Amino acid sequence: MNPVLVNVMRGGAVESTHCGAVAVLDAEGALVASLGDIDRPIFPRSAVKVLQALPLVASGAADRLGLSDTELALACASHNGEGVHAQTAAAMLAKAGLDAGALECGAHWPYLETAARALAAQGLAPTALNNNCSGKHAGFLCLACALHGGVDLRRYVKGYVTPEHPVMREVTAALQATTGYDLASAPRGTDGCSIPTYAVPLRHLARAFARIGSGVGLSDGHARAAKRLRAAVAKAPFMVAGTDRFDTRVMERLGERVFCKVGAEGVFCAALPERGLGVAIKIDDGNNARACEVVMAAVIEAFVALDDEQATLMRSLSDVRLSNWNGIEVGRLTAAPVLRMLGQ
Amino acid sequence: MNPVLVNVMRGGAVESTHCGAVAVLDAEGALVASLGDIDRPIFPRSAVKVLQALPLVASGAADRLGLSDTELALACASHNGEGVHAQTAAAMLAKAGLDAGALECGAHWPYLETAARALAAQGLAPTALNNNCSGKHAGFLCLACALHGGVDLRRYVKGYVTPEHPVMREVTAALQATTGYDLASAPRGTDGCSIPTYAVPLRHLARAFARIGSGVGLSDGHARAAKRLRAAVAKAPFMVAGTDRFDTRVMERLGERVFCKVGAEGVFCAALPERGLGVAIKIDDGNNARACEVVMAAVIEAFVALDDEQATLMRSLSDVRLSNWNGIEVGRLTAAPVLRMLGQ
Repeated sequence: MNPVLVNVMRGGAVESTHCGAVAVLDAEGALVASLGDIDRPIFPRSAVKVLQALPLVASGAADRLGLSDTELALACASHNGEGVHAQTAAAMLAKAGLDAGALECGAHWPYLETAARALAAQGLAPTALNNNCSGKHAGFLCLACALHGGVDLRRYVKGYVTPEHPVMREVTAALQATTGYDLASAPRGTDGCSIPTYAVPLRHLARAFARIGSGVGLSDGHARAAKRLRAAVAKAPFMVAGTDRFDTRVMERLGERVFCKVGAEGVFCAALPERGLGVAIKIDDGNNARACEVVMAAVIEAFVALDDEQATLMRSLSDVRLSNWNGIEVGRLTAAPVLRMLGQ
Repeated sequence: MNPVLVNVMRGGAVESTHCGAVAVLDAEGALVASLGDIDRPIFPRSAVKVLQALPLVASGAADRLGLSDTELALACASHNGEGVHAQTAAAMLAKAGLDAGALECGAHWPYLETAARALAAQGLAPTALNNNCSGKHAGFLCLACALHGGVDLRRYVKGYVTPEHPVMREVTAALQATTGYDLASAPRGTDGCSIPTYAVPLRHLARAFARIGSGVGLSDGHARAAKRLRAAVAKAPFMVAGTDRFDTRVMERLGERVFCKVGAEGVFCAALPERGLGVAIKIDDGNNARACEVVMAAVIEAFVALDDEQATLMRSLSDVRLSNWNGIEVGRLTAAPVLRMLGQ
């Protein structure tokens, strides 16, 4: 069993707990810290979007189409589906000569409830552009511009979400190269946005993110692409998530010192470039907002030197006040003591 | 550590798991089945609303004010905040000579997203009537009519959510009497709607629900009140939850054969009157929709004789198809094998 990483407190008593595992490695694969089982393959879901976006840059497609930092950041995003996110995805598709009709991610209401209600108030329904993955998919479709080899692009991209499509093969190859894990024999599932997701151990994911932060162990093309994508996200952190989201708030404050990316089902990965480290977290029960974020905040506190303002932000994310509908403090979400001893 | 009760599957692999504990007892306290630690006190939250509603009926207030089945069901509810829920809460308050201004539960957007978006589309914001606890609070205010002893009612009810207020003392006494657990020394927290919540072991909660189903072990007043409340909920199961909700769907199909009530943080209690049993469940990580509901469905399958239609419904709730934004089946939520062996 994995250890308790987060305690949910009410009135001084533990009400609920979240268990999970954490891996912190360098780019060579040296283990710096770990909690729980880091060798069981887990589905990384959207936490690896930056790995999946490497071919977009490495192929030359991003440069050829003139993708901006904002657009490259969106290619790595699980965004809130706010207006600016949807518009940016549409702009990327336009640069590829495509439109929202080419997206195969499906539609869902914006994650940000105020954005969902604003759409509803206008009598509108969400489109695939509001899907949290629309930027990643727009990136896949831009990548297709470098791969279609003269075939009519609209025809070429049909079914791009399937494992056998050349676009997805390129994306999977990047995942394979950066994690160094044999994806051909890994458990495979279908992600929320219909692309394949391959189960990879936290150990390999953490090493991959150390590589993303340092370039060590990557091909030259992937190393340059990783640097470009990290810089883009640091310049446009709103694009990678949005209003009130952990990734946006942390990277707005910490810039290139942290590259972090949440995934569904309690997965969280990060690169800590100054320390040459990568981090990968999985919460056993799949809880995101109140579990893997608290753990990531505590890991950042343990491994990144923070100024006072940064330290205040990170502590507010690793030891969170819980209030009720009347604004009364009823409890706290707190990183377990075992996390406070990491990095010491 | 408590055992895994629910597996979240993706593409044939276990993606996430939910651990927890289950207690099944009769009204005398005999243990019929259990999994995990059922003696650790846990906050039952809204799962015990029927226990908290006993004084409303037992005091004679419900009869005096002429509360309908629909209104009594709402007094036991964690409802969706749909129009009919808000209107019914308002009607209860009117019978007490009060209005929404007396509610101290706070306001939140309706749980049902379509109801929230419908409010937003009309340019409206939610009120305390939309709070999932508005019926319980309206019930407390109706109970106050039997307690205020001539004091101006509006003045009398101020602060009714605090542990020391006569209304809340009456409610807590009912909880104490039915669970047989010493609440004076139990951990106490503040609930989402600002009333106190007392930590009680699953063993005591399950026995209390066996008593609610059978009347055995209750005072005559509580036994009559329990019977009346169960009948009311069976006649108006939409009021106790609402559109697409587990409690509503199950009781619409099973009537008085099951009385079940979910609470926040992965708590679920039920009375199974035909078997004379009570059930109490706590998911360690606090997950509701996809964990404690799956467990409750499996427990009902194990202990209640079901016709084909009922069996089909319950199996669809204990072995749930998970589909993505494109409607593709990506996995399943399934009750763990250990639950399938209960009751055998």
